[in-house]
Amino acid sequence: MPVSRWAPNARERLEDAALELFAENGYEETTVTQIAERANVNRATFFRHFAEKREVLFGGEDLLADLFADGIRAAAPDATLPECLKAALAAAGTVMTARQRAKATQRLQVAATSSEVQERGLLKHARTTGAITAALRERGLSELTARLGAELGMLAFRVAFEGWMKTAGDEPFPSFADAALADLQARIAEYLPPPPTPEA
Amino acid sequence: MPVSRWAPNARERLEDAALELFAENGYEETTVTQIAERANVNRATFFRHFAEKREVLFGGEDLLADLFADGIRAAAPDATLPECLKAALAAAGTVMTARQRAKATQRLQVAATSSEVQERGLLKHARTTGAITAALRERGLSELTARLGAELGMLAFRVAFEGWMKTAGDEPFPSFADAALADLQARIAEYLPPPPTPEA
Repeated sequence: MPVSRWAPNARERLEDAALELFAENGYEETTVTQIAERANVNRATFFRHFAEKREVLFGGEDLLADLFADGIRAAAPDATLPECLKAALAAAGTVMTARQRAKATQRLQVAATSSEVQERGLLKHARTTGAITAALRERGLSELTARLGAELGMLAFRVAFEGWMKTAGDEPFPSFADAALADLQARIAEYLPPPPTPEA
Repeated sequence: MPVSRWAPNARERLEDAALELFAENGYEETTVTQIAERANVNRATFFRHFAEKREVLFGGEDLLADLFADGIRAAAPDATLPECLKAALAAAGTVMTARQRAKATQRLQVAATSSEVQERGLLKHARTTGAITAALRERGLSELTARLGAELGMLAFRVAFEGWMKTAGDEPFPSFADAALADLQARIAEYLPPPPTPEA
């Protein structure tokens, strides 16, 4: 029974088809036409969802930027900067599923062989950092404090992500995120202590 | 009097020629052949210095990564993390000349119109962060502390660079770098204070 061309989950099917084909034949060798065929949709449908081939690898990243920002916006009005970052990572945790982990593994394998994919990943990373910065600015933080917070939040996310990717078990992402954030704060306290207050 | 094809400063001439042509005709429209002709060298000479067209824009970035790492290696054995970052930025300051500022202005203009140039810039940025991380690791810092230091150092560099790019005057780069680093440390002290010590 053929899957309908108009099935509502075309985007997800395209992502799955692309990762299968990249694994089978290599990223460079795979065409958009092949991805669309495997997903049982036409090329036009591919381009309604993704601007170009490598974008099919990064649908999750665009979503993450929104989740981080939403998490920060939903934090309590008097939340401290670390509390805002914790809220951002917790919001991201909702999409860090076993399926996402499997997809991320494949994406990292493709990125290891393609600098254009690596570079697009860095562009997404920069945009996500920008989204966190903007959400922190909305809370009245200065530009520099917001940038500092965004860099620390993204570092905590990457560290948590790396730990989570290594586990085969069911330990959920938020526990990695909380540990990474606490670990970073401990390093800051140890290696970047406040300058001594001058004596009166 | 034609400039010799074997002139020793071919790399610098190629960089200047490329920026001129990008400004005149646009980045996309300019070919490697045109850049080589303008610099009065042949295509083979271009490719001895740069792997591809967009690399001609980033010669300075590769140099910066080395300077940051050298600065950290040359810091006193008992230097603190902020002192290491200060040493890295000071070492970079030696190449932040008026000529570099003019080139950086042109590069930013090209990057604003080309996502492939933007992405290459992010790749260079990631590699520079990696070079700082490695130099801090060599001093015995843990992986996480080294990554934290590298992210903060790069943020201080970007903030200093933005300030320095805006000045028309002769204020040297290191004064921007020192101010940015001090500013970041003050924000850390205010927004990321050490967790309260539990009472005994």
